[in-house]
Amino acid sequence: MATLREISKKIGISIATISRVINGYDNVSDETRKKVLKALKEFHYQLPQVAKKRLHYLVGILVPDLRGNHYNIISEGIEEELTKHGYDSFVTSTYQLLNKEIEILEQFFSRRVDGIIICTTRNDDEHIERLIRSAIPVVAVDRMDSSIKVDTIGIDNYQSAYMGVKYLYNKGHRNILFIQGNKDVYSSKLRKKAVLDFSKKFKIKVTILKGNFEFEGGYFPVKKYLENNDKDFTAIFFSNDQMALGGMKAIYELGYSIPEDISILGFDDDSYSKYLFPPLTTIKQPRNEMGKIAAQLIIERITGKGSKVKRKILLPTEIIERCTVKNIL
Amino acid sequence: MATLREISKKIGISIATISRVINGYDNVSDETRKKVLKALKEFHYQLPQVAKKRLHYLVGILVPDLRGNHYNIISEGIEEELTKHGYDSFVTSTYQLLNKEIEILEQFFSRRVDGIIICTTRNDDEHIERLIRSAIPVVAVDRMDSSIKVDTIGIDNYQSAYMGVKYLYNKGHRNILFIQGNKDVYSSKLRKKAVLDFSKKFKIKVTILKGNFEFEGGYFPVKKYLENNDKDFTAIFFSNDQMALGGMKAIYELGYSIPEDISILGFDDDSYSKYLFPPLTTIKQPRNEMGKIAAQLIIERITGKGSKVKRKILLPTEIIERCTVKNIL
Repeated sequence: MATLREISKKIGISIATISRVINGYDNVSDETRKKVLKALKEFHYQLPQVAKKRLHYLVGILVPDLRGNHYNIISEGIEEELTKHGYDSFVTSTYQLLNKEIEILEQFFSRRVDGIIICTTRNDDEHIERLIRSAIPVVAVDRMDSSIKVDTIGIDNYQSAYMGVKYLYNKGHRNILFIQGNKDVYSSKLRKKAVLDFSKKFKIKVTILKGNFEFEGGYFPVKKYLENNDKDFTAIFFSNDQMALGGMKAIYELGYSIPEDISILGFDDDSYSKYLFPPLTTIKQPRNEMGKIAAQLIIERITGKGSKVKRKILLPTEIIERCTVKNIL
Repeated sequence: MATLREISKKIGISIATISRVINGYDNVSDETRKKVLKALKEFHYQLPQVAKKRLHYLVGILVPDLRGNHYNIISEGIEEELTKHGYDSFVTSTYQLLNKEIEILEQFFSRRVDGIIICTTRNDDEHIERLIRSAIPVVAVDRMDSSIKVDTIGIDNYQSAYMGVKYLYNKGHRNILFIQGNKDVYSSKLRKKAVLDFSKKFKIKVTILKGNFEFEGGYFPVKKYLENNDKDFTAIFFSNDQMALGGMKAIYELGYSIPEDISILGFDDDSYSKYLFPPLTTIKQPRNEMGKIAAQLIIERITGKGSKVKRKILLPTEIIERCTVKNIL
């Protein structure tokens, strides 16, 4: 790779002018611009010295996907906080990487990241293990890791779901449908376990239906159940708000009212949840806060400040009482 | 920066072992791992030769934000297509960059991107102009650019909204509320203009209410209007589905039925729209397809294949007829 000085000499155009082209200023003639761009390409010029000097710390954020309302909001929290501290960041989805764990590392190395924040709820991601063992500081969000080999930030999914079913119990509900999320997501497993544990302890009836954290994962199970069974329950606890939205449609289609006939409890407090009709009662998880704290942790790791001990940080969830749960006591 | 060989010599650990540490393999003792990581840091080792050789083309995707259902879905389309062609990519939100246009360029340079896809609907982004004039190939998604200085992919917002209001007209609606989106977004302006042009041509009454593309931007204007006026319209055309969701709640709260009392037309076909009650009639824009074609265009630009002429590609939209528009003829 040639330096700017060498290129300047080669094509007889001043460094100042080349710099103006690189930085996209418009006080350069079209002809000169073309000549400079051609030369930059020819000499594989890539990194201006000025950029090198100013270069900020760079954090790569790894998410499973950007759809829905989970990882994108966590990512925003991360980026907000990193920006505040003068760090740069970018987001990469793992679904696109075809599980080529070595490639992820090589990509991050080649992009010269100073730290990585991985967001994942799946336990079977071997490449995550590899990242954790690599030379780059790592913080994990929303990840189950009992041995705490890495700084982790998340919510207590078990306690949150336990609080949810207890809330329904306290409103008099003794016969509850529980719509679970994806089976291979650890948070989904924990939420289901909490509900089952509560039902055993307090001797109430809980029926588990399979869902998938998507809108249709709420719609179809509820629709099918109500078509094939009597309405032998008083409340439905959905593992997330997306499924609650889908399930509410099934309930309306079959002529039931919310919360008069059927009470509804969601999980997440998505941005639309308060605009549903009626507004959804749900369990709020502090996604933005999770992102912010993840950013603070990675900054500590990168700068070498703060504790050397790996930490697992759990944030509180809370029930947002709106209008979908009826007190039937 | 030292080479692996130099580091190996310095610390007396084989290159193979150092490589295993870098790549996160677990057949290395903890002591050795620590020693290697320390040395890598000390000698500022960053880019393994193996990564350099395998390095794929890298495309930076610039989006205003990751919330909602627009740019994240377009980004997914872009990433899917790039991955299929062996390209790497990452996403950066512009909101975090505080309009420091030079920094964006420097960041992209320093990350050695081969191409940039910018997604934006605002016209006032000066840094976009800078990017377009820079040395890196650029493709724009969802951007109004009459002079076509850059390859652009999007939908025809004017024609799409015109089709929407015409659809309502053909169902007998002659008195329509139109809830507009953010005023500074070009797609919002075009949609509003189309509705006004149609209303003049076909002599129907259209009342414009200010919105903001968010759930509350549908809820509050509709609620306020219905509280302060008679229901002097038969249909509401929302500039996007998020506002339609919010508006539907306002309509229900005030005791009206959909579509019996008020017909509703949305714009976007968001993932939840078919799970609303009743399912939302809306105008679908092909976001995933927009992303895919943007990826194909940037690949053409990076590889130098394809036309040298800058193109503006418009994709078709379509009305998805569900259950929120009543035929009142």
